Amino acid sequence: MVEPVRIALDAMGGDFGPSVVIPGAAQFLDRKPDSVFIIYGDSEKIAEHLNAFPKLRAASKVIHSSVSVGMADKPSQALRAGRRVSSMWMAIEAVKTGAAHCAVSAGNTGALMAMSKVCLRTMAPIERPALAAIWPTLRGRSIVLDVGATIGADAQHYVDLSMMGAAMARSLFDIERPTVGLLNVGVEEVKGIEEVKTASRLLQQIDSPLFSYHGFVEGDDIGRGTSDVVVTEGFTGNIALKTAEGTARQITAYLRESLTRSLINKIGAFIARGAFRELKMRLTPRETSGAVLLGLDGVVIKGHGGIDANGFSGAIEIGHGMVRRALLEKIRDMMALAEEQVDGQTVAAAAPSERPLETGQ
Amino acid sequence: MVEPVRIALDAMGGDFGPSVVIPGAAQFLDRKPDSVFIIYGDSEKIAEHLNAFPKLRAASKVIHSSVSVGMADKPSQALRAGRRVSSMWMAIEAVKTGAAHCAVSAGNTGALMAMSKVCLRTMAPIERPALAAIWPTLRGRSIVLDVGATIGADAQHYVDLSMMGAAMARSLFDIERPTVGLLNVGVEEVKGIEEVKTASRLLQQIDSPLFSYHGFVEGDDIGRGTSDVVVTEGFTGNIALKTAEGTARQITAYLRESLTRSLINKIGAFIARGAFRELKMRLTPRETSGAVLLGLDGVVIKGHGGIDANGFSGAIEIGHGMVRRALLEKIRDMMALAEEQVDGQTVAAAAPSERPLETGQ
Repeated sequence: MVEPVRIALDAMGGDFGPSVVIPGAAQFLDRKPDSVFIIYGDSEKIAEHLNAFPKLRAASKVIHSSVSVGMADKPSQALRAGRRVSSMWMAIEAVKTGAAHCAVSAGNTGALMAMSKVCLRTMAPIERPALAAIWPTLRGRSIVLDVGATIGADAQHYVDLSMMGAAMARSLFDIERPTVGLLNVGVEEVKGIEEVKTASRLLQQIDSPLFSYHGFVEGDDIGRGTSDVVVTEGFTGNIALKTAEGTARQITAYLRESLTRSLINKIGAFIARGAFRELKMRLTPRETSGAVLLGLDGVVIKGHGGIDANGFSGAIEIGHGMVRRALLEKIRDMMALAEEQVDGQTVAAAAPSERPLETGQ
Repeated sequence: MVEPVRIALDAMGGDFGPSVVIPGAAQFLDRKPDSVFIIYGDSEKIAEHLNAFPKLRAASKVIHSSVSVGMADKPSQALRAGRRVSSMWMAIEAVKTGAAHCAVSAGNTGALMAMSKVCLRTMAPIERPALAAIWPTLRGRSIVLDVGATIGADAQHYVDLSMMGAAMARSLFDIERPTVGLLNVGVEEVKGIEEVKTASRLLQQIDSPLFSYHGFVEGDDIGRGTSDVVVTEGFTGNIALKTAEGTARQITAYLRESLTRSLINKIGAFIARGAFRELKMRLTPRETSGAVLLGLDGVVIKGHGGIDANGFSGAIEIGHGMVRRALLEKIRDMMALAEEQVDGQTVAAAAPSERPLETGQ
């Protein structure tokens, strides 16, 4: 029998706390029964919801915490008030002690990153963590990182991001040799900042069996799905992600307005309502509802703040998948192989410690 | 009688050249008969199309050029081969000599920027030009700059961008005191790069009657229309713009797929077809189909490369509006007022040289 995946949940995170986290976990458990939970937070509030899901209750241990990190708290404030005692910290710490394989929180992003960094530390030789989003594209899904963990990057950080993103793509998409694109601007000669250009040269030199460098991609290549992984530093990545989210909201608002403006449009929209349900699902698929904190010595998933139970179940599923498919080992393999290359050794014969799964997205 | 606006057109620019430029100009002339044109390009090809529009022909002078800048040419290559002799250069030069009030080209962005900078030079004290996009929002339209003219920025450049953008908003939207937001990321304490923070402090200190500093905005605020002007440097701005374009294309592709997947959806979509026409118009409104090169000693409009005649007529209309509403003077006013402030003089009594038009977007 396979060992169950042990998942630590911050029940107090997100805009809705246990009322979303608990039903989300229950939904997830229905899909993946090979999981057990440690749920951190206000035990009374948790019990209120947990009692409705006997199967989940049987698979869970609740650990009380009376401190929760506010969605608007500054990271330093959250660390001061919530270190060791908050539900968020305790969920992360469970990963550190080995009590859990991964932690999932829909709480305050800045606080989650700060606490994860302090508690879990980065995985050598990675110096700075990254936040990786799963982005729905016309071809399927891509990984975009960094969407806000670290502002600014030197060339080496872009290379680290490329390797972490590729390792995550191998874990998540079962692609043997994912393609990595470096986000840049399209005007030929002013093309990009020095660091991005240097990173591109470095990536061209790495001949890894674990990823393939595609070259530069532009903003509109993300939605197109041109590469499996899109790499940029946290400032630009955060703005790209939020701009895309804003554009999606804007277009759905336009669509809603147009479809309700006249009776005839309302009738048409009613008849084609299946199409709009489908559109909604394609825009916010469950599989993209969590971002992954990469570069840490542990698996931490950030669910979106305004997530619903279905979305939260998707965020847990991302964590579960990262554990089952050995994300951390894949990152370590990637880094080790790159270091061998830097040391000038042959890498052609080097094999990753795990056999890659079948190809195809 | 008002003097007509003299508009120089690069007939060879864009993916379709005169077949779009000429009908576009004809459409525009129907809306704004107070215009005359100087059309640069292959006179034979121009005549082919111009003969179909006698009214436009009567209002136009055609000047032959056998050199056109390719859409894939590098800026330096375009300058080497096209300086003085290409239709693009000649259109820009017409602005310099005063033969035209503004130039409009749907050609190669990098080449257009490079040629404009060499030919027209920047307007003192502005050191580097910017490309300003007009972005449809839930509230109407906003100006986003820089979307790719200049990569990287120090604090002073952000301030220059703010003032140029505000001057353009005053010209384009008839708002007396537009709001300006600085694009930044949302994580509180890692908030932004040093230059952006410093720029924010500088902007807070400027108490201009010509614009109001809103503070930081995030990627999703652009589509929301939180501020009339959104300021960022060219790398991030270009990526934000292209990411939004990519997302819009992705969503309309999803929508098309969903609406054609079943007969019942097709029927609904047919009944509500007016709504989808409206959506398309709201996503690519004619008034947003050109970007403005700011900071130059002349008005140059860049129409999108893949534009149709209706879109090109919108790009001309932006140029026409910038001339009629004295964009360059508004930028000069803005800069002069800011300099007085820096010199420590009272600015409360200072009035712009033009009376602002009525307020409201």
